Amino acid sequence: MNLPSKYLEQCIHELSKLPGIGVKSASRIAFYLLKVPKTNVDALLTTIAQLKNNMQYCKQCGGISDADICTICSDNERDRTLLCVVEEPEDMLSIEKSGAFNGLYHVLGGVISPLDGVGPEELSINKLVDRCKQGVNEVIIATNPTIEGDATALYIASLLKPTNIKVMRIAHGLPVGSDLEFVDAPTLAKSITGRREM
Amino acid sequence: MNLPSKYLEQCIHELSKLPGIGVKSASRIAFYLLKVPKTNVDALLTTIAQLKNNMQYCKQCGGISDADICTICSDNERDRTLLCVVEEPEDMLSIEKSGAFNGLYHVLGGVISPLDGVGPEELSINKLVDRCKQGVNEVIIATNPTIEGDATALYIASLLKPTNIKVMRIAHGLPVGSDLEFVDAPTLAKSITGRREM
Repeated sequence: MNLPSKYLEQCIHELSKLPGIGVKSASRIAFYLLKVPKTNVDALLTTIAQLKNNMQYCKQCGGISDADICTICSDNERDRTLLCVVEEPEDMLSIEKSGAFNGLYHVLGGVISPLDGVGPEELSINKLVDRCKQGVNEVIIATNPTIEGDATALYIASLLKPTNIKVMRIAHGLPVGSDLEFVDAPTLAKSITGRREM
Repeated sequence: MNLPSKYLEQCIHELSKLPGIGVKSASRIAFYLLKVPKTNVDALLTTIAQLKNNMQYCKQCGGISDADICTICSDNERDRTLLCVVEEPEDMLSIEKSGAFNGLYHVLGGVISPLDGVGPEELSINKLVDRCKQGVNEVIIATNPTIEGDATALYIASLLKPTNIKVMRIAHGLPVGSDLEFVDAPTLAKSITGRREM
């Protein structure tokens, strides 16, 4: 395609590298940026640059943070005896959005995956065990329901077994609003083995 | 939702203002930007800033351009007797992508819409008539198939009628790959009234 401007071409090229953005969406965003006032574009550029330059990992939970300790870890209203273990910092946000959890988090930084050369040493599992010694009563393991996620959950559970801590796994089953007819067999199987008394 | 970082919150807020980007996509993009090397993020920010700061409108066609005259208007291999009239600069790109047109463009900057207070004077219609006097043989009106787009096309056609220039309208009918059963009635009507000999 013959674009009338090399700046436009470069901008569309860079935008289309973003996840979920194809050439068509990128071109739509580029024309939108051309139309809006310069202050709006500056605001966007500034917030991206600030995020990239100032963001760090919380020294306690390993999640995204503005300071050494993130706002969740330093929030005294949260239940410090309850710990939720997640794979990545973005998983923290999903759980926060659900509104069903009021404890602290622990970000592993991935899952055990021998094929990718990721063993327990590459993840912050030792740090999790250390944190569990400091007054934690219950650990909820919220790794993804994949082979690696389940294996990592089992590994962590085995490490914490000798302690008195309750080790829980998030429930797997039918998503809310789904249809029994169209749900896949492994999910349905999980929802039957994991049935609860009403 | 309780976000662990105000930078992340601001960035997601700004990204979600982009067209086609909701809070979920914005959050995905923000985490992607955190993960990729700083040079990639800098490349994105630089191209957006360059686009916004250096972009201008071509003094001839009114499209997007890096210089006074855009690369399409200054391309000597294009047919200068053929002019395609479009509403917005982005429409030029769509037609270029189709690969079916090798003439020059003329961007109106909108359509006649009395309800929005847009009359012929607000659009570059006088300039179009002036350009048509300079050796143009054929004008293809490619405004959108909407009430305003059709009205604008009719208005331009009436202005050019006294000249010897061939005034054409792009064809309306069934999109390629569509299904007669599911196409709307006005489109089907257009495809019948606009039928062509095989």
